[in-house]
Amino acid sequence: MTEPLLHPDRLFSSNPREREIARSLYQQVKDLPIVSPHGHTDPRWFADNAAFSDASSLLIQPDHYLIRMLYSQGVALERLGFAEPVDSREVWRLFAQHYHLFQGTPSGMWFDHALSTVFSIDERLHSANADGVFDQINKQLRQPEFLPRALFDRFNIELLATTEGALDSLQYHDAIAASDWPGRVVTTYRPDSVVDPDYEGFVDNIAIFGELTGENTGTWQGYLNAHRTRRAYFIERGATATDHGHPTAITADLSLRECEGLFGKVLAGSHSVYEGELFRGQLLTEMAAMSCADGLVMQIHPGVHRNHNAKVFELFGRDKGADLPVAVDFVTGLKPLLDRFGNNAELNIILFTLDETTYSRELAPLAGHYPSLTLGPAWWFFDSPEGMLRHKRQTLETAGFYNGAGFNDDTRAFLSIPARHDVARRIDCRHLAELVSEHRITEQEAFSLAFELAVGLARKAYGLG
Amino acid sequence: MTEPLLHPDRLFSSNPREREIARSLYQQVKDLPIVSPHGHTDPRWFADNAAFSDASSLLIQPDHYLIRMLYSQGVALERLGFAEPVDSREVWRLFAQHYHLFQGTPSGMWFDHALSTVFSIDERLHSANADGVFDQINKQLRQPEFLPRALFDRFNIELLATTEGALDSLQYHDAIAASDWPGRVVTTYRPDSVVDPDYEGFVDNIAIFGELTGENTGTWQGYLNAHRTRRAYFIERGATATDHGHPTAITADLSLRECEGLFGKVLAGSHSVYEGELFRGQLLTEMAAMSCADGLVMQIHPGVHRNHNAKVFELFGRDKGADLPVAVDFVTGLKPLLDRFGNNAELNIILFTLDETTYSRELAPLAGHYPSLTLGPAWWFFDSPEGMLRHKRQTLETAGFYNGAGFNDDTRAFLSIPARHDVARRIDCRHLAELVSEHRITEQEAFSLAFELAVGLARKAYGLG
Amino acid sequence: MTEPLLHPDRLFSSNPREREIARSLYQQVKDLPIVSPHGHTDPRWFADNAAFSDASSLLIQPDHYLIRMLYSQGVALERLGFAEPVDSREVWRLFAQHYHLFQGTPSGMWFDHALSTVFSIDERLHSANADGVFDQINKQLRQPEFLPRALFDRFNIELLATTEGALDSLQYHDAIAASDWPGRVVTTYRPDSVVDPDYEGFVDNIAIFGELTGENTGTWQGYLNAHRTRRAYFIERGATATDHGHPTAITADLSLRECEGLFGKVLAGSHSVYEGELFRGQLLTEMAAMSCADGLVMQIHPGVHRNHNAKVFELFGRDKGADLPVAVDFVTGLKPLLDRFGNNAELNIILFTLDETTYSRELAPLAGHYPSLTLGPAWWFFDSPEGMLRHKRQTLETAGFYNGAGFNDDTRAFLSIPARHDVARRIDCRHLAELVSEHRITEQEAFSLAFELAVGLARKAYGLG
Repeated sequence: MTEPLLHPDRLFSSNPREREIARSLYQQVKDLPIVSPHGHTDPRWFADNAAFSDASSLLIQPDHYLIRMLYSQGVALERLGFAEPVDSREVWRLFAQHYHLFQGTPSGMWFDHALSTVFSIDERLHSANADGVFDQINKQLRQPEFLPRALFDRFNIELLATTEGALDSLQYHDAIAASDWPGRVVTTYRPDSVVDPDYEGFVDNIAIFGELTGENTGTWQGYLNAHRTRRAYFIERGATATDHGHPTAITADLSLRECEGLFGKVLAGSHSVYEGELFRGQLLTEMAAMSCADGLVMQIHPGVHRNHNAKVFELFGRDKGADLPVAVDFVTGLKPLLDRFGNNAELNIILFTLDETTYSRELAPLAGHYPSLTLGPAWWFFDSPEGMLRHKRQTLETAGFYNGAGFNDDTRAFLSIPARHDVARRIDCRHLAELVSEHRITEQEAFSLAFELAVGLARKAYGLG
Repeated sequence: MTEPLLHPDRLFSSNPREREIARSLYQQVKDLPIVSPHGHTDPRWFADNAAFSDASSLLIQPDHYLIRMLYSQGVALERLGFAEPVDSREVWRLFAQHYHLFQGTPSGMWFDHALSTVFSIDERLHSANADGVFDQINKQLRQPEFLPRALFDRFNIELLATTEGALDSLQYHDAIAASDWPGRVVTTYRPDSVVDPDYEGFVDNIAIFGELTGENTGTWQGYLNAHRTRRAYFIERGATATDHGHPTAITADLSLRECEGLFGKVLAGSHSVYEGELFRGQLLTEMAAMSCADGLVMQIHPGVHRNHNAKVFELFGRDKGADLPVAVDFVTGLKPLLDRFGNNAELNIILFTLDETTYSRELAPLAGHYPSLTLGPAWWFFDSPEGMLRHKRQTLETAGFYNGAGFNDDTRAFLSIPARHDVARRIDCRHLAELVSEHRITEQEAFSLAFELAVGLARKAYGLG
Repeated sequence: MTEPLLHPDRLFSSNPREREIARSLYQQVKDLPIVSPHGHTDPRWFADNAAFSDASSLLIQPDHYLIRMLYSQGVALERLGFAEPVDSREVWRLFAQHYHLFQGTPSGMWFDHALSTVFSIDERLHSANADGVFDQINKQLRQPEFLPRALFDRFNIELLATTEGALDSLQYHDAIAASDWPGRVVTTYRPDSVVDPDYEGFVDNIAIFGELTGENTGTWQGYLNAHRTRRAYFIERGATATDHGHPTAITADLSLRECEGLFGKVLAGSHSVYEGELFRGQLLTEMAAMSCADGLVMQIHPGVHRNHNAKVFELFGRDKGADLPVAVDFVTGLKPLLDRFGNNAELNIILFTLDETTYSRELAPLAGHYPSLTLGPAWWFFDSPEGMLRHKRQTLETAGFYNGAGFNDDTRAFLSIPARHDVARRIDCRHLAELVSEHRITEQEAFSLAFELAVGLARKAYGLG
C-alpha cells in the first residue's frame, strides 16, 4: 500500500481526538481565499502573463531554500546554472538525484504540493522519474491554464503583495491595473537601497531618488520629502505597507541637527559602522512618523547577516542561500522609536524575527503591551511545521491570538504559495485542536479563531478592505 | 452540548493513557493545602478584613496581565480608571467586551477559575452577561464568607508570604499576629529601595533606613548593620526569605575599601551606570553573607526592564504592564558571589528568569552543581501551561526534581491564587503522566513527586516548618 | 505489578500509532553495531585488559554527571573519595541513598541500563539493596567476560574513538594494535594543551611539543610543523578526527606577520585576554588548513566555562561537574575560517553546542549552506531524551537529515556506551515515528533514515571505512 504524495491528514497530530478536531476545523478554512500581504513574487509575471519557460527555472533556480541545501551537500553552483547557463534538464536531474535531502523539510512538502496540486503528478521525484516529470511539467506550462494569471485565479488569491525598492518604476503594477484582469497585485515600499548607507551604490541611489521625486535629496528635509513622495506613489499602486530589512532592531530618535549631520556623513561616505547603524535606526523612526501620517503598515524584518559567504557573494551575487540569522535585541533596540510612537494605536508595526529566543522573552511581551505593535508570523527558516508550532506555543500565552498578523508566505516561489498557506492552515488547525482537546479553548472559539488565522487577522493587520 | 467553564480534564493531555495517569495523580494532590512562599498580595486585606469593594477593583484594575492586554488592543488606560476614577461598572463592561482577547491565555483561565470556584458563576464572561455577572459578584462580596480571611481559609492556604520594602513598618503583619485569626501571613524582605542607587528617592531612603534602625547609614558599615537590623525585624514577622529584583544577574565581591568608595559615590549620586550595577551586585553578595548568618533564603528575580514605556510610566506610574524581559547571563554574573558562598550547603539561593534560554544553558547546570543554588519555578509570563512545560522539559534532565523549589504563584491578585496552584498541579501531573507513560519514571515515583511538587519542595526550599 | 527496570517501550511515545511505528523501526536498528567516533574512554583499559576494581570506581567516581548531582544536594566531595581514598562500599552506599535524585534524568537511565544489561540486576538501586548490588557487581567484575575487551566485544562496538592530547605517546593504542585482539580503538587529536595560551603549563608544553617532533617550536613555522608531524603520528594510530574545546567559537585569519607577533606574545606570556582568544581562533583556522591537507575531520566543541567553581577546582581539580555552558555566536565567530575554507566540500567540520539557542538560529542554517559544515548531535547535558528531541525538531527542517553526523556518546563512562546508543536509537525511532504518523515522511523513508542515524551518518561524517 503506497502512501499518496499528499496524505489528507498530513501535519495533523496522530492522536485520534486531536486529529478529529483538526480535520473538522480544516474543512472550514481550507477553501478560503489566499490573502498574501507580504511576499517577493515578480509582478512582471502578472503584467506580461507570459508562459513560464521550464520546470527548473520556475521551481528550482529561484528558490534559495533548495539551492542552499544542494550546495551544502557539495553541489557546485556552476552546475545549477549560476555562472553560465546550463541545460535546464540537467539541473532538474541533479535536483531529482538529491531530492532525498529534503525529507522532512518544508521545502520538500511545498515541492510535493506543487507537483500534486498544480501538475497532477502524484509520485515523489527521484532519479528514475526525473525526465518524465520534467517533460510533463514543461508540457503543461505551455497550456493557457498554466499562465501566471490563470494560476493566480486557480490559487484563489484574494490579494498578493509584492515588494519593490523605493526607486522602482512600478510599471508592472501599472500594467496590471491597466489590464482587464481583475487580479489584485499590490506593491510594498521597501526603501533599503536609499536608507542603508552600506547598500551598493547608496550615494548614487540618493541622487536618483531626488530626480524621481523632484526633491533636493542632498538635504535632510529634501530626502525625507522624497520618501513622502515615493510612499504616496506606492500607495497609489495599492501599497498598504512598507518593509524594512535591517541588520539589527536598533532605532534612534536624534535631534534635527544630529540628523542633518549624520545625513551629511553618510552622503560623504565618511560614517563609521556605528553611524551607519544609527542612520538606519533613525530612518526606522522617520518611517514610523510617516506611517502615522499616511497609514502605511510598517514591517520590520531584522537580524539577518546577508551574504555571509564572501566567495559565493563575489562569484554568484545575492540570494543564493547564504543569509544567516543573528541574535536580536528588540527591547532595547526599539525603545527610541516606541518612546515617540509606541502608544499610537493607529500606527501598526509588525515584528518578525529569525531569533526564536525573542518570541517569549521580547516579542510576545512587546506586542502584548504596545498598541502599535503586532506580532508577525514565523518567518523564513521557521515557516515550517515545527517552526510555526514553536512560534504559537511561545507567544500565545502572553500576546493572545489577537495581537497577531495572521500568516505571510513571504516567498518568491509563486507555485509554493498555495502549499505554504495550506501548511499554515493545517498547523493552525492542529494547534487549535490541541487546545480544544485539552479544554483550553472551546470548539466554538476554535472555529472562529481558525477563520481569523486563515484570513481575518491578515486583512486587519495590513488594512486590507 | 456546551462545555462547562472548567472542564474536569482541562490541561491534561488528550492522549488517553497519559490522561488516565494524570487524573489519578491529580486526585492525590488537588486538595492539598496551598503553600504560597512568594507573592505580592496586600497584608492589609487580612489585617483589616474589610469587604472588597467591587468586581473591577478586585479582579481587573490591580492585575497588570489584564491591563497590558487591553492596552495592547487600544483600550486607553484613562478608560480603566488610571487617570481619574471612573465608574467601576463601565470598567467591567469594557473588560467583558474585550474578553475574547484572553482566549488560550493563563489570564483567561485564572479568571474563569475565580468566577466558577469563588463566585459559582459558570458561564464565560461576554458583553451580554457583563452586567449580571458584575452585580452577582458585588452582591457576594458583601457577604461574610467573601471577606479576605474567610476566602483565605476557604482557599486552604497553609502559608502566604507577602513582600515588603525594607522601610515598611510591617504594621499589618503585626495586626494579623495580634488578632485571633490563625491564618499564617508572613513577610519577605525586599530591599530594592535601599540597594538600588537608581531607585526613586534612594538617598532619602538611606537616611530613613538609618533612622529606622538607629544606624549611621552614611557609612558602609552602618549601612550594612541597618540591613542586619531590618532583616531581624522581618524575621520576627515570620520572614523566611529575601527578594531581589535586579536588572541583571551581575554580582561583585569588592574589597572593603572599594565598597566604601562606591557607597560614597552612590550616596553622592555621582556613580556611573556601571557603578550603579556594581553596587547592586555587591549588595547581592552582602545579602548572601547575611543569609549565611541569619538563614534567610535569597530569591533573585533578575532581567526585567521596568517601566519600558516612558509615557505610560510618566502618566500612570509603575506596574501598568510595561515591564519587559531582557537577556540574562547567570554563569558570568553570579560568579563573584558563588566564588565566596556558592559551596555553602546551608545557604539557599533561588533563581528565577524571564529569559528561557537560560533554563537549559545556565540555570539547570548551575542548580545541578552548586549546593547553594535552587531552581525557582517558571516565572511571570511563563507561569502558564506551555511556559511550565518548557521549564520542566528544559531543566529536569540536568537538575533533577530535587534541585527545584516547587511552585510560586507570585501574584498580587488574591483570587487567582487557587487558580494558579490548580494550573501548576495539573501541569505537574500532566508532565509526570507523560514520563510514566513513556516509562521514564515509575507510577510510584510519580505519586511521590506529585506531592513534592505541590507542597514538599516549597516547604523545604523556603524553610517552612 | 512492578514495572521492569527497563521497559521494552521506554522512551517511545505512548500514542499507540506512534509507538507501533517506533517499535518496528527500533527492531531494525537495535542490534546494529555501535559506532563511537567521539568519546573519552581510557585506551589503557583495552591495552592492559585488566579487571575493573569495583563498582564505585567503575560506575560512580569517574562520572561527572553523577558527582555534580550529589554535590548539588550537599554531598561533600571528600565523602566521594576526591580528597583522600575512602572505602568504596561507603561511596556506593552514599550513592544508593541519593539515587532518587536521578529520577527522570539520563544519568538514571544509563545507570539502570548498565545494571540490567551488563550485570543482569533488574531492581532499582536503593539503600536497602545497596550492599547486595555492590557485591554482585564486584563479583562479576572479577570474571573473564567482564574484562574490558570482553565487554567491548559484547557491546558489539565496531569502532571506538578515544581522545588524546597532542603530547600523548599513544602507547596504549600501540599496545592494542600490537595485540592479537581485533577491537578497533582509534585516537583523536586534541591539541588544547598546545593551542590554548591559558592552559596550565602552556609554555612548557610548547617546548615538549618541539622535542617530540624535532621542530623548533620557538618559531611560528616550526610550531605549525610540529602540529603537522603530530597529526600524522595520530593518523598512523587510526585517528580520523581532531577535537577542539574552545571557550568561544571565535576564529581568526591573520597575516603571517601578525601570527608571528602573536605567537611571540603568547610564548612570552604577555598576551591580553583578547589576544589569547585571537590565538586560539587563529589556530582553529590553521587546523582547518591542515585538515584540508591531511583529511582529518574537525570537531569544534565551544562555549564551556571550564572549572567555574574556584574552590572545587583548587581542592579537587578538573572534571568534577563544575563546567558550565555559556552563550555562543557561531555566525560571527566562524566567519574568518569560513571565508577561507568554508566552501571546500572535502573539508568536514562538525559543530557542537551547549547553547541550544543556536540550533535553529545558527547551526542548522550554517550546516544547511556551507559544504564544509556538519551538524553534530546534541551534546553533553543535551544527550538526553528531551535534549535530543529539541535538537531534532529545531534543526531538521533547515538542515535536513543528511547534514548531520549521527550520534556521539562522548563519554568517559565505558559502561554507559550501550545505554547511550540505545537511548539515541530509541529517540531516533520515536522522532521518525512521529514524522511518519503525521505523514511528513513515509515509512519506507523512515526505515532508511533510522539506519543512517544509527550508523550510516557517523561512518560517513568521520570517514570510517
